[in-house]
Amino acid sequence: MRLRPEFEAFSGLILDLDGVIWVGKRPIQKAIETVRKLKELELKIMFVTNNSMRSRKDYERRLRSLGLDVDIGEIMNSGYATALLLREKYGKGSAYVVGELGLVEELEGQGLRVLTREECWKGGADFVIVGMDREFNYWKIATAMRAIRRGALFVATNGDKTFPSEMGLLPGAGSMIAAISAASGKEPDIVVGKPSSHIFDIALKKLGLRRDKVLVIGDRIDTDVEGARRAGMKSLLVLTGVTREEELRSSAIKPDFVLSSISEMFTRDP
Amino acid sequence: MRLRPEFEAFSGLILDLDGVIWVGKRPIQKAIETVRKLKELELKIMFVTNNSMRSRKDYERRLRSLGLDVDIGEIMNSGYATALLLREKYGKGSAYVVGELGLVEELEGQGLRVLTREECWKGGADFVIVGMDREFNYWKIATAMRAIRRGALFVATNGDKTFPSEMGLLPGAGSMIAAISAASGKEPDIVVGKPSSHIFDIALKKLGLRRDKVLVIGDRIDTDVEGARRAGMKSLLVLTGVTREEELRSSAIKPDFVLSSISEMFTRDP
Repeated sequence: MRLRPEFEAFSGLILDLDGVIWVGKRPIQKAIETVRKLKELELKIMFVTNNSMRSRKDYERRLRSLGLDVDIGEIMNSGYATALLLREKYGKGSAYVVGELGLVEELEGQGLRVLTREECWKGGADFVIVGMDREFNYWKIATAMRAIRRGALFVATNGDKTFPSEMGLLPGAGSMIAAISAASGKEPDIVVGKPSSHIFDIALKKLGLRRDKVLVIGDRIDTDVEGARRAGMKSLLVLTGVTREEELRSSAIKPDFVLSSISEMFTRDP
Repeated sequence: MRLRPEFEAFSGLILDLDGVIWVGKRPIQKAIETVRKLKELELKIMFVTNNSMRSRKDYERRLRSLGLDVDIGEIMNSGYATALLLREKYGKGSAYVVGELGLVEELEGQGLRVLTREECWKGGADFVIVGMDREFNYWKIATAMRAIRRGALFVATNGDKTFPSEMGLLPGAGSMIAAISAASGKEPDIVVGKPSSHIFDIALKKLGLRRDKVLVIGDRIDTDVEGARRAGMKSLLVLTGVTREEELRSSAIKPDFVLSSISEMFTRDP
């Protein structure tokens, strides 16, 4: 078993989670074994996900429970990427957050002051940060629109309009962003998650590798493959997630490599 | 005191409420007196509002409390217009409603079966009807998107993205529609309220008058004036509401008449 020659040039991997390592609650066993082998080859790995609902600690816990020796420094979710980007570009500030606990945790972890709805309603905010939020409601739209109309920077963790779940397709952060955009008369100033290059640039910096040395691996053409293209990195599309071969054939966006699963990165040939 | 000659040709009036008869909670006394005089001249009147939160009965009560002898048959809100349109075009059916009690009341009044979230989640719906809803939340988006993706007709009471209130600008039905559109990957099949011509056509039918015999009066260029244009009716813009003269000057859409208030429809000249 050895790595296929086309992958030998890479020193690092940016790996999507849902659709690559697991599908919803179900782990993909062969993929997990592959990650273990890739780590043995001393390839640097960064798991990158658009999901902002859980914190990096949650992901570390889950990956460890699947038997992967993963450190929190190898995980990048859109919430953490947003926190890093804002800290780097703007320093500290106050934020009204439409999002779940995992997002708030990452933002506070980077020194952002997260406001209550009442605080924001009265005094405004430096940032309005919008991610997936199952507690999304009318008054959150009203508070966000008010702050944005008063000049807060409108930041989206990611633009996914839907995401697959055990219950079927559910509304994603992009749906919440659409409501707030309509009410505030403004599109987000920054979108951090894939296919924006921001999240890839931040992951790359953490990996400390050159752009051409890193391969992006994911299951979605519109986020993983398109995001890699925008960030100037090579991409590998795997078919263990949402993308079917027909869709790939009809897509104008083409990955550099396609495999049925990341386990196919290794070959039995001598 | 007599009607200005330019208005003598009209036998009916379609009158907006907010910005014409009252501004939020504050009644415009001179406008109310003018409506009384217009009714004395036996002009047929229909009050037409995009607001779907209250029922026609609520409006009848409010207008009567202001001293106007108004009948429920003279009131058309976007909820009632939606109910009439659906009954006429599709007969009966089941509806998942994102909206307030006033809307549900009008829909049930026309024989539509309004589903609970649980009923809709399990079985789908013939219509998803979206209006302004201060109880809007994530699971309403999810339920609506699911029903629309399964084939329900997507109906919007009106598309206003914001509306003015005592608390400042608040998100309108258009903001909720944007979230559901993003998640369902589909724009509304029907928008009933202004500036759509549907609500004007329904009001016209109720008035029983020819299109050229009815004047549309309102305070907004983008809904009242533009709606009148689309419906092929003449319009009078009044400046008692949201529109300022500067805005009118820079607008590409022009009303047929402009007055500072409807009270100016009468003149003291002999």
